[in-house]
Amino acid sequence: MAVIKPSIPKGTRDFSASEMVKRNHIFNTISSVFKKYGYQEIQTPTMENLTTLTGKYGDEGDKLIFKVLNSGDYLSNISTEKLDSRNSQLLITEISEKALRYDLTVPFARYVVMHRNEISFPFKRFQIQPVWRADRPQKGRYREFYQCDADVVGSESLINEAEFVLIYHEALSKLGLKDFTIKINNRKILSGIAEIIGKPELIVDMTVAIDKLDKIGLDGVTKELIDRGFSADDIEKLKPIILLTGSNEEKLGSLRSVLSASETGLKGITEIETIFDYLQLLTSQNQETISQNLELDITLARGLNYYTGAIFEVKTNEVAMGSIGGGGRYDDLTGMFGLSDLTGVGISFGADRIYDVLEELKLFPESASESTRVLISNFDEQAEKFALPLLQMLRNKGISAEIYPSSAKLKKQMTYADDKNIPYVILIGSDEMETGLLTLKNMKSGEQQKLSSEQIIAALSV
Amino acid sequence: MAVIKPSIPKGTRDFSASEMVKRNHIFNTISSVFKKYGYQEIQTPTMENLTTLTGKYGDEGDKLIFKVLNSGDYLSNISTEKLDSRNSQLLITEISEKALRYDLTVPFARYVVMHRNEISFPFKRFQIQPVWRADRPQKGRYREFYQCDADVVGSESLINEAEFVLIYHEALSKLGLKDFTIKINNRKILSGIAEIIGKPELIVDMTVAIDKLDKIGLDGVTKELIDRGFSADDIEKLKPIILLTGSNEEKLGSLRSVLSASETGLKGITEIETIFDYLQLLTSQNQETISQNLELDITLARGLNYYTGAIFEVKTNEVAMGSIGGGGRYDDLTGMFGLSDLTGVGISFGADRIYDVLEELKLFPESASESTRVLISNFDEQAEKFALPLLQMLRNKGISAEIYPSSAKLKKQMTYADDKNIPYVILIGSDEMETGLLTLKNMKSGEQQKLSSEQIIAALSV
Repeated sequence: MAVIKPSIPKGTRDFSASEMVKRNHIFNTISSVFKKYGYQEIQTPTMENLTTLTGKYGDEGDKLIFKVLNSGDYLSNISTEKLDSRNSQLLITEISEKALRYDLTVPFARYVVMHRNEISFPFKRFQIQPVWRADRPQKGRYREFYQCDADVVGSESLINEAEFVLIYHEALSKLGLKDFTIKINNRKILSGIAEIIGKPELIVDMTVAIDKLDKIGLDGVTKELIDRGFSADDIEKLKPIILLTGSNEEKLGSLRSVLSASETGLKGITEIETIFDYLQLLTSQNQETISQNLELDITLARGLNYYTGAIFEVKTNEVAMGSIGGGGRYDDLTGMFGLSDLTGVGISFGADRIYDVLEELKLFPESASESTRVLISNFDEQAEKFALPLLQMLRNKGISAEIYPSSAKLKKQMTYADDKNIPYVILIGSDEMETGLLTLKNMKSGEQQKLSSEQIIAALSV
Repeated sequence: MAVIKPSIPKGTRDFSASEMVKRNHIFNTISSVFKKYGYQEIQTPTMENLTTLTGKYGDEGDKLIFKVLNSGDYLSNISTEKLDSRNSQLLITEISEKALRYDLTVPFARYVVMHRNEISFPFKRFQIQPVWRADRPQKGRYREFYQCDADVVGSESLINEAEFVLIYHEALSKLGLKDFTIKINNRKILSGIAEIIGKPELIVDMTVAIDKLDKIGLDGVTKELIDRGFSADDIEKLKPIILLTGSNEEKLGSLRSVLSASETGLKGITEIETIFDYLQLLTSQNQETISQNLELDITLARGLNYYTGAIFEVKTNEVAMGSIGGGGRYDDLTGMFGLSDLTGVGISFGADRIYDVLEELKLFPESASESTRVLISNFDEQAEKFALPLLQMLRNKGISAEIYPSSAKLKKQMTYADDKNIPYVILIGSDEMETGLLTLKNMKSGEQQKLSSEQIIAALSV
């Protein structure tokens, strides 16, 4: 067997022990908050039927789906004509019937339809699993990455929207973030604006342009609007709307008068107000308020073709970074699988970006880098025999412990403890075995204490 | 877009909320024990380079690897000659360079070699991830399933073997299993036996045959041994060895005299004895002993081509089921990637089988089917307003809680709570709002109590 210099596919990653502990800290925090709000975890298979995924993400998306080659003699049923065409695109469905999950939304829709008779609606589910995209890899963009989604389907209640704001707030606060903004908008407000300026058919062009306000400024947006078919007159009408300032309440007040002629627009405003009212009620007993983190942003338009009501996006203000979360309400998630009129609303956390933010702000708890709590040294057979009963006593007390598995020089064992971030080492030499008082070394402070086994167990149990 | 009746690829599974809670109970129990013994979690990508996997699992294994089709115009670089050959086997490497992980062992070996300069040896890692095999699906055999592996590389110490016995014992006990057997053997003992009967070259044939003693009995084994080239004389020598009975100590005593002429065989016996000695020392302070669960079984031979020292296998005696765990020591895990002489030992838990065993024995804790702890009813707008501050107070106390998101009939809300296994429901009607005493209903007993919000929080916090 030829020796292969090992590597992994581009855009994929190994996760080391210290990275895994940090990643699990993020996933566990988010899932504990999801659960507290009544969301239940499900999982779907890594591979879906290709027909389940195709046509759901646009032509560009279809190209980015990883297809799995059929097993066995996959070429046997292809006509010579088709094979001779050398048309890679055309041959895909002949040689591949399965593909890797591209996101969690389409598999979730497929799940809801397949299991609709077992599901009790409203169905509140969360899902934390990897997805795969054959994108060109670059900094921060991977071909395998995790999504963390929570959705509720079968409930029109805006309590769900209000609770998603609380879920974002609680999860990000628990992760140690302080200065972040949960942006909220409503598709109906955007529709209302397009109506008011008399260009309802250009709503997508309008929102794509004003969504860029942050990045390209008002002049840039103006230019893009003109390119996309808006008149100077339209833009004059738009300007005061997209430049709205003030508190959320002030913005809502202004919008209500601007959109007074649009029934849809007014409905959007009422929805936002209802969500704010629910939030006020929900947090009325809280010490802290969430209002400083919540911002009505009528330039927010992500996934417009998809969302029909509320639109969410979350950004941190402590580090330069794209959005770390987003979501919204959609009215026909499962229609593509034949189950129509099932409304839903959902959010997503960008776990990889959150990881980078916590790393940069040094917000990972120290315990998140600790695994084994204590290492027992091993200098000879006699010390090893002395150590083993203590080792297991520590574990019986729930303390993660290990012995250096064979005798070795002190320095080597200390390096091992350091590399593994083990905070305590128990040193057992002839002196220790004679007196029964063992040396407990604090690896951070360097401090050493002589203690009995019982005292050591007590000290490490804290 | 045509409506597709949704399905999933054969051999794959969706996991519902109740299944996920049970699966997580198993994974969390196993990983908490791994951690207690100093093992750290890592993860590797779902896709590996095809060259990393090919040739590691035999010809049959290679066929069962799921290959991922290259993106883009994957046919463009294939010669007409090759394409015209219609040789599916030959074309694989032309149109696929990535494949799905087939097990956790080969990716782990690849990981160790790739990261050898960052790793502190001995390297104790565990890994709980799905693997994929294009096997014919059947009851209990899936195309996507999880493996739970712990391995240590870079340590010859038999303390590791002893600790794996403890890990099996602790994890399975924690999961509620009582009557299980951890079987242990040693490749060197098997080599010694083959030596003694004068057929060292037939060791694989010998072990394959005697491994079946449980299934086909002594007559079956005898027949198979003759088919595989052993003489009646050989079999006479073998019989007393494979039919060894008595305690582990008695078996070791007999073996020592039988194998006295085989240096390798004696080494195997000494290794087993050393492991037993370590176990005695480790558990000397324990209340319970593990000896009733540990059995020396010299017919045990799983993965013989691979293991060089200890061999493990775990079976439950409470349910008819194949092995629920296995492992052993290997001397050259990383040689295939150019890093030789790195010894390792590892074990694996069969999570899917353990799931079936716990289900059959009803060993999943009741809490494992509970998600939300309390549902607040919703009968009208006024009650909803009354409920929301309480809802968030419950969550602030760490109690998983939800409100039925819109007003609905009592029966519908009760069904929702039942379906979701929610143990408590808070009923808020006009009476309750007037007095401030809310009705707390225990969904299991049907019992109802009138309590203040504070009393409810106290009752549910227990």
